[in-house]
Amino acid sequence: MAQMTKEQKTRLECSDEYAYVYDRNPDDELLQSANVIIGLPKPGRLKNCENLEYLQLTSSGADAYVKPGVLKPGTILLSSTGAYSQSVAESAFAMTLCLIKKLHLYRDDQNRHVWSDRGKVTSLRGATVLIVGLGAIGLVYAGLVKAMGARVIGVKRRPSECPECVDELYLVENLESLLPRADVVCSILPGTEATYHFYNKEKFSLMKNSAVFINVGRGTSQDEEALRDALLNGEIAAAGVDVFEKEPLSEGSPLWDIENLLITPHATGGDHMDVTLDLIAQIAADNFNAYVSGKPLRNVVDFETGYVK
Amino acid sequence: MAQMTKEQKTRLECSDEYAYVYDRNPDDELLQSANVIIGLPKPGRLKNCENLEYLQLTSSGADAYVKPGVLKPGTILLSSTGAYSQSVAESAFAMTLCLIKKLHLYRDDQNRHVWSDRGKVTSLRGATVLIVGLGAIGLVYAGLVKAMGARVIGVKRRPSECPECVDELYLVENLESLLPRADVVCSILPGTEATYHFYNKEKFSLMKNSAVFINVGRGTSQDEEALRDALLNGEIAAAGVDVFEKEPLSEGSPLWDIENLLITPHATGGDHMDVTLDLIAQIAADNFNAYVSGKPLRNVVDFETGYVK
Repeated sequence: MAQMTKEQKTRLECSDEYAYVYDRNPDDELLQSANVIIGLPKPGRLKNCENLEYLQLTSSGADAYVKPGVLKPGTILLSSTGAYSQSVAESAFAMTLCLIKKLHLYRDDQNRHVWSDRGKVTSLRGATVLIVGLGAIGLVYAGLVKAMGARVIGVKRRPSECPECVDELYLVENLESLLPRADVVCSILPGTEATYHFYNKEKFSLMKNSAVFINVGRGTSQDEEALRDALLNGEIAAAGVDVFEKEPLSEGSPLWDIENLLITPHATGGDHMDVTLDLIAQIAADNFNAYVSGKPLRNVVDFETGYVK
Repeated sequence: MAQMTKEQKTRLECSDEYAYVYDRNPDDELLQSANVIIGLPKPGRLKNCENLEYLQLTSSGADAYVKPGVLKPGTILLSSTGAYSQSVAESAFAMTLCLIKKLHLYRDDQNRHVWSDRGKVTSLRGATVLIVGLGAIGLVYAGLVKAMGARVIGVKRRPSECPECVDELYLVENLESLLPRADVVCSILPGTEATYHFYNKEKFSLMKNSAVFINVGRGTSQDEEALRDALLNGEIAAAGVDVFEKEPLSEGSPLWDIENLLITPHATGGDHMDVTLDLIAQIAADNFNAYVSGKPLRNVVDFETGYVK
């Protein structure tokens, strides 16, 4: 991650039992000697980390680290899910508004020096927004669309109480009956085996012709051919997609030229907002403080599912 | 305006003393016989409307109708300000988010098949948003940015109580001390003599280099050369402009090609959102009901200022 501030380091360094080494490009020797790693090391470099007690990822997704052989059995894997919520949710929200207000089309017109009215636009006021994968990002997004007057439906894998900013909460098994109701479908699914090509021809065909699809989860969750067909055949009205099966998206991909698709280059999260870095540093500090005092850790990843437990 | 629904007509037709004629293209005879006109007739066609008691415009702006000679003295002029608030405010909000999240630049990259990270983006969370012209539109916009965590400063011509969604309220005389504080300046000034080229070189130079300027009021309020210079010289970061001094903007205007300027073709209001038409019909019905029963009218335009009193 980016250079930590003095204040962030002070919050982290809570125990004299450990030495704290800050190195953005550690060599193998340093990496393999570590008891705790905070960062995003290449998965292939962790094989011989015999001392490693836990790895605190600075990313939200953990899929590359749960594969067998990456970490020695028993190593605790922690993600930074939550830190990216504000950034990703705000960008997903901006994409949603951009599409329903046709700003992407007006931008194209501008580039052609064309003053042309694109007709009706819709509103989130009174719209039904379906959030698939109601985790930390989904909750922030839910709050934003709710504040604009949307009805919010959340979908999760596991039952839980319905949060205040969500009107209806269902399990993912119910999705097929919910898709036909949604004016906006915002997906924040992680990249796991279970979510591979989750958005296929059938799912898109269940959406309204006027629906806007947003994907800020992982690219493997959408079948790109099915997405392209749905957009070109008018099965959905528009899509805003930040994630793709292969990134960077190849220059020759047919997706680039789809007018009613807005593409961003996996740029909604990362360190794009200053607040994110501070939230990551806070999670790392909280977890290290908890670890040395034997308290429960945040964002422990389940190796079976790839999700935070 | 667009065809009124049966329900909208029923709400309007409250008196048997009047005959109700619905005609989207009235001839001179019909127009000149009317006691009340609801619509947006060409100003030049109103000269001989000797019977006209009041003109209920279906537009928000009234500048073309307050000029001497357009309406006979004593004719009441009513605007539909308020009806467009939701539509204009939502589009201004979408433009704001599009610009701070750099979606206009990502759209350009998409059109070039370029996968390129544009770096940091900002947030409305903790940002200071200055709304110049805090009328009906400004209040809706204030509520939207406030819900995202912004600090809202409103500027008005006349003193009033500070609305709940506004943190600080000032008179327009104080603007020069407020501009340097704003991360976003959203202007909703009408097109009057007093606002002509209000945003000039000096005003732009007072804004932060990181500021985003939004104009959804009237195009005459901005000096387009000063706006262009401010954008090209980095005096402000970006602008989203829906209104221009001459509309349509000419094909050869140098504004089209400014990368950090997002242009929309006076398309934030109008009948772009279905809810607007119903709000206009409601204002027209409320005013006619009030008129026939001698009650106070809404949205009475002051011929001196061009504003609603």
